[in-house]
Amino acid sequence: MPAASPATDVFLTPAALLTHWQGHRKLTRRVIEAFPDEQFRTFSIGGMRPFLAMASEMVNMAAPMVQGVLTNEWKRYVETEIASKADVLRHWDDTTTIMNDLWPRIPAARFQEAIKAFGQYEGRACDLVMYVIDNEVHHRAQGYVYLRALGIEPPPFYER
Amino acid sequence: MPAASPATDVFLTPAALLTHWQGHRKLTRRVIEAFPDEQFRTFSIGGMRPFLAMASEMVNMAAPMVQGVLTNEWKRYVETEIASKADVLRHWDDTTTIMNDLWPRIPAARFQEAIKAFGQYEGRACDLVMYVIDNEVHHRAQGYVYLRALGIEPPPFYER
Repeated sequence: MPAASPATDVFLTPAALLTHWQGHRKLTRRVIEAFPDEQFRTFSIGGMRPFLAMASEMVNMAAPMVQGVLTNEWKRYVETEIASKADVLRHWDDTTTIMNDLWPRIPAARFQEAIKAFGQYEGRACDLVMYVIDNEVHHRAQGYVYLRALGIEPPPFYER
Repeated sequence: MPAASPATDVFLTPAALLTHWQGHRKLTRRVIEAFPDEQFRTFSIGGMRPFLAMASEMVNMAAPMVQGVLTNEWKRYVETEIASKADVLRHWDDTTTIMNDLWPRIPAARFQEAIKAFGQYEGRACDLVMYVIDNEVHHRAQGYVYLRALGIEPPPFYER
């Protein structure tokens, strides 16, 4: 990449990133809600996972990533199985609170440090956080296709 | 949002953002390539657009957004219709070069300014750039579902 900007130049501040992320999470919550309970657990295209599995993965990545960046302790969010749309939504809202509580405590310099998340994913903390958000946007978009295939209008992508 | 970090705190630098974006664009290029020519133009699920239309939209957003943030002039990238996979791939590679050329010329402070993109989308420049990336990740993921439904293995999401 040819771009070289000083390490002090800001594209996004940590506060802006949290706002961005929570905006995405608000939209993803609406996509989860748009599914009928049954299809949330079972509907699939092309052998892909049902949206329950994708949404459970998001729950297991978001708060644990924030917690891990803050404390360097890596653990799954939910040890028990997530089995329903109601389960996911409950954990979703708890996650929102946890993120808003923990994120501001992370020193800004930490985001530029090399870390190993969950004992295996190596990279700068900022890049690993971006990966979690990208993963959510990616799977949420697959939820959009599932909803369309089910004849259900998903919430507009641009509403956060 | 409760987070309040100084405006000088860095989560991502402009250089890191370009690397992140080009990593996504490299993966999206592989998803485009994975489609058979015919299905790229025609395949659809649930009344959604074929991947040609989604990929053309990406071409019409990426370089024009970078150009617009730099110059405050807003114009479409391609005035003529994009009709094929080969067309998209050609414009894709031109876009990569344009982005690498223009991005480093944008003063860092510009990303925090309020702008009106394409005469209608208002927001901070950084948020509008993020929207273009999110839009690409969103539609690329829908391309993943199309490929799966066609029985084609898409490239791994984590490879950039």
